[in-house]
Amino acid sequence: MEKNQNKLQDINLKNVKLNSGLLADKNKLVREVVIPYQWQALNDELSDAEPSHAIENFKIAAGKSQGEFHGMVFQDSDVAKWLEAVAYQLASNPDPELEKRADEVIDLVGEAQLEDGYLNTYFIVKEPKMKWKNLAECHELYCSGHFIEAAVAYYQATGKDKLLEIMEKNVDLIASKFGPEADKLKGYPGHQEIELALVKLFKLTGKNKYLTLAKYFIDQRGQEPFYFDQEWQARNEKNHWPDFNSNTAREYYQAHLPVRKQDKAVGHAVRALYMYSGIADLALETADESLLKTAYRLWENTTQKQMYITGGLGSTVHGEAFTIDYDLPNDTAYTETCAAVALIFFADRMHKIDQKSEYIDVLERALYNGALSGMSADGKRFFYVNPLEVKPEVDQARKDHQHVKITRQKWFGCACCPPNLARLLASIGSYIYSKKSASLYVNLYTANQAEFEMKGEKIKLVQQTNYPWTERISLEFANPKAVEFELNLRIPGWCKEFNLKIDNQTISDTQINEKGYLSLKKEWGQQKIELVLKMPVEKIYANPAVKEDINKVALQRGPIVYALEEIDNGKNLAAISLADSPELKSKFDQDLLDGVAVIESNALKLDQIDWQGGLYSVQKPVKQPIKIKAIPYYAWNNRGIGEMTVWLNQN
Amino acid sequence: MEKNQNKLQDINLKNVKLNSGLLADKNKLVREVVIPYQWQALNDELSDAEPSHAIENFKIAAGKSQGEFHGMVFQDSDVAKWLEAVAYQLASNPDPELEKRADEVIDLVGEAQLEDGYLNTYFIVKEPKMKWKNLAECHELYCSGHFIEAAVAYYQATGKDKLLEIMEKNVDLIASKFGPEADKLKGYPGHQEIELALVKLFKLTGKNKYLTLAKYFIDQRGQEPFYFDQEWQARNEKNHWPDFNSNTAREYYQAHLPVRKQDKAVGHAVRALYMYSGIADLALETADESLLKTAYRLWENTTQKQMYITGGLGSTVHGEAFTIDYDLPNDTAYTETCAAVALIFFADRMHKIDQKSEYIDVLERALYNGALSGMSADGKRFFYVNPLEVKPEVDQARKDHQHVKITRQKWFGCACCPPNLARLLASIGSYIYSKKSASLYVNLYTANQAEFEMKGEKIKLVQQTNYPWTERISLEFANPKAVEFELNLRIPGWCKEFNLKIDNQTISDTQINEKGYLSLKKEWGQQKIELVLKMPVEKIYANPAVKEDINKVALQRGPIVYALEEIDNGKNLAAISLADSPELKSKFDQDLLDGVAVIESNALKLDQIDWQGGLYSVQKPVKQPIKIKAIPYYAWNNRGIGEMTVWLNQN
Repeated sequence: MEKNQNKLQDINLKNVKLNSGLLADKNKLVREVVIPYQWQALNDELSDAEPSHAIENFKIAAGKSQGEFHGMVFQDSDVAKWLEAVAYQLASNPDPELEKRADEVIDLVGEAQLEDGYLNTYFIVKEPKMKWKNLAECHELYCSGHFIEAAVAYYQATGKDKLLEIMEKNVDLIASKFGPEADKLKGYPGHQEIELALVKLFKLTGKNKYLTLAKYFIDQRGQEPFYFDQEWQARNEKNHWPDFNSNTAREYYQAHLPVRKQDKAVGHAVRALYMYSGIADLALETADESLLKTAYRLWENTTQKQMYITGGLGSTVHGEAFTIDYDLPNDTAYTETCAAVALIFFADRMHKIDQKSEYIDVLERALYNGALSGMSADGKRFFYVNPLEVKPEVDQARKDHQHVKITRQKWFGCACCPPNLARLLASIGSYIYSKKSASLYVNLYTANQAEFEMKGEKIKLVQQTNYPWTERISLEFANPKAVEFELNLRIPGWCKEFNLKIDNQTISDTQINEKGYLSLKKEWGQQKIELVLKMPVEKIYANPAVKEDINKVALQRGPIVYALEEIDNGKNLAAISLADSPELKSKFDQDLLDGVAVIESNALKLDQIDWQGGLYSVQKPVKQPIKIKAIPYYAWNNRGIGEMTVWLNQN
Repeated sequence: MEKNQNKLQDINLKNVKLNSGLLADKNKLVREVVIPYQWQALNDELSDAEPSHAIENFKIAAGKSQGEFHGMVFQDSDVAKWLEAVAYQLASNPDPELEKRADEVIDLVGEAQLEDGYLNTYFIVKEPKMKWKNLAECHELYCSGHFIEAAVAYYQATGKDKLLEIMEKNVDLIASKFGPEADKLKGYPGHQEIELALVKLFKLTGKNKYLTLAKYFIDQRGQEPFYFDQEWQARNEKNHWPDFNSNTAREYYQAHLPVRKQDKAVGHAVRALYMYSGIADLALETADESLLKTAYRLWENTTQKQMYITGGLGSTVHGEAFTIDYDLPNDTAYTETCAAVALIFFADRMHKIDQKSEYIDVLERALYNGALSGMSADGKRFFYVNPLEVKPEVDQARKDHQHVKITRQKWFGCACCPPNLARLLASIGSYIYSKKSASLYVNLYTANQAEFEMKGEKIKLVQQTNYPWTERISLEFANPKAVEFELNLRIPGWCKEFNLKIDNQTISDTQINEKGYLSLKKEWGQQKIELVLKMPVEKIYANPAVKEDINKVALQRGPIVYALEEIDNGKNLAAISLADSPELKSKFDQDLLDGVAVIESNALKLDQIDWQGGLYSVQKPVKQPIKIKAIPYYAWNNRGIGEMTVWLNQN
């Protein structure tokens, strides 16, 4: 791979207006509900929710308020993620009042920053002598990473560089503390994040020093002696978290092997995925072949061995972590919302390396299922954990299900997921298209209008569709001047049949290219393209190595994974089996869950009422025919508490 | 129920000699291997096993050795259980050397006992000021209970009353400390055990005061204010176990409700089952109707809602406890060996209340499956936890499977299970027959010869069978004088067809009575009875409310529950489905696992090798025909480490 090649770019958020449909609705919900709601949370104005204290921490650090630091050691990052989400919203929907509020927050962040560039309210307020002494547990670099991302986004949205200056100063401090030189620390973040943020900062500023620092953190990780042991001994074996054990933590931190030797996703899923995203970024920006191979290996293991059908990652609550290949229990899944969001980041970066539709398949899987499920329909309640099977009385009785909440929560003491989802959905417009020189990629289908340039000429493109509910997509160019380029329409992996018209002419000699796109090279001026992606209901089977899904099927239509809820199908969902030849019908229900396509089918259910066999019997339970209704997984638990399952027995 | 009615009695162990077969073999293994092995363990003579220190603790308490107390706070009970097992063995197999060793241990126990009768080496050696101040956590009454049981057994076996005197003195001290009188403590044991032991002591001595004390403990439990909170406050909120929380512990201790109001099995399974056994004992001995109803209710809930097919109890490691009705996960089951042993105790007592075959059905289920599985074929390794599904790589990777050991262990720091199994198997001869006035019950089928009295006349009875492997049982009376009585032959619940001959004459007009016994009233002198219990392989289905067993079957033949092991059936047992119409064949294999009947069948297995679908696919996995072999569950893990499952998919 050559350096400085023609790289794939997103279409800037400013140039894409979402019009209608599922993603536009969720984007609007973030703008109108989530961002204001989270602002209240950050300011402790929510009743019945755990107080955040995040803004107050900055006021105290800035000397504008008196008091103690409260909250998690990484509480600052909630402010950063809120600012980042605000930036994305301002890019597409200017809002002077919101911008003023964000400017004030940025001013406050600047006032909290120390003279030397240091920025972390926990250490400024509470433990000033412990700076950089507990990277393993205390998230200083992680928080900086989130503020860097916010600074880049805010600059791109508003042109204002105050936060950027704050963070460049902060990064200069970090670079003066960490590095290969003898007088610098040999550490790396306990929670990865800054690596990908530094690449963003490089891409914006062109300053190589940011790449150098990111690469240092990546290459330092996994070296022996184990840095987190060394710093632990250096601070007299004092821990921040009571049950932290640095001796057994190498895998948790993805520090069990040098990064370039890693080939399995291990440890804390969000940390892993942020790191993999950073690896992919660095591989692309530095044309580093060995990092590139690492990215491919870790992508393969993550998505082909350890991913739930919802795009959820992390099979265990213990360490919020990956376990082993094919270990994907549905009821005790951790599948943190943040991990699905992080998988989207990783997929997007892999797609920037190689424009294969399959990366966007994973991105869509995580987006429409395991990520969206994190937020209630009203945008005010959130799942941290997104299991694929819930039985409320069991989840409440069993301590090993304690992490499974049977309904979304208002806010969390550890509030990483809600703002993470907010920043993703606020920026979703940037995932729709990408381009490089004379190639335009249409990656996501959702109603929008976009204006941007190809070969220096203005392109106006209007996309109309009610995807993911309907099969029909229209793309209409209204370019002032016709421009020749390759238009690449993504054909999703789930789509086995499609058809295409251009200006009402059926194009029959279409061939998907080896990367899964329909590539149409011509002069594009005023044409209307109509693409139909056939969207039958599919029965999906898991690899037989996945014990929990054996003899089961999941229902999927388009990118949407379905689930059965008790409210539609009665109690004891596990007793339901799909009929041998089920008539699976989908229909759009405008009045249900803000408008979703539901799936109905004939099925069978073990008769529990007439069962006379006590606990065990030689009598085979009788199956009775029933009708079942499935709803999109992401929309479950919006109609009260009850059972839910994604995987259904086969008869 | 009337007091002092004609009660059911066991035939004394001294009068029953086991000859051959599974139970005789296990009994012999206890005598020849387990008891000497446990003696070594108690004396810290085992290499590679956690040291016990139990005998040393007594020596220190007796002033015969110097040092500190080591081990669990209930370490004494291992000595008591060993003595009890020794007593049972001495009853049927006199062994002067072993008896001398036991006498020496009893002498040592006597020397350790304090002047006032107090006996607990932990408190004598380590915390003399804390006696009776932490009943919740510290097992003083539990240890006394086990020594009482040992004392009764030792007296019955040897006629020696030294330990009995020690324990009567100890109980007098306890009775002076606990009771309704104003100056006495209002407590009750944290770990129940002494209740049933006190009833044994009453039955031996006829002294009502022991019943009174047992009843006091039962009735005090569950009263408000919660005694364990009170004593916790009284000792300045100091805990013995670091994570003990008395405020949330009511259910753990079965102290959430007054005992007579309890209707569900909750909390720590072994504590619960020991208490239920004590309730049944007291109900019978005191003709207490409300306690009797309590015993029936708790029996019903335990065995009809919360029991594994193996007779295992306790669905969760957290608190080693029951959870909720029908929550019976196979892979994370706790199903402690001690809980299966305790279920046998409870079943035996329910049978003493009402001579129904169904109580012995449960006793056999627990004995031949969930209890026997606790010990390796060589008698030197033990399972504490007996799950119904094991996949070694998952159990080792997942922290929520940490309690599942994939192979039996040499000894445990908390060594409750091995000696518990030893005392059960040492006394198994006493479970075969029971009698009352003119009725003799044959409860268990196993080769033995018994001599006892009916109506004052000598009865000689020889049972020949290779049960549970073969269907044929012969019972031959050789009574010096014919005696008229009702001979009740148990027809197990699993047995749908049987036939009977007396002196080679087929008896065709046999009818099982409403209690599940074949009742034959006649003069019994020199007859030979031949009973054939047809033993086809049965497919067993669980109640459809048991989520984990839906669309699954277990194989059972006679009282034996079967399991598939990887060594016979390859990896990924979960991918196997029993064929639609399986040809299930059983055959006895003398050379396998000390001689067991195996089950062979045709089955199907998902083809993992040829699967091309990655992690998820619309292609249905192909099933290939295979042959499977199942072995008795109790005998698994005697041929190396590998997967195991009891429940099999139906096709």
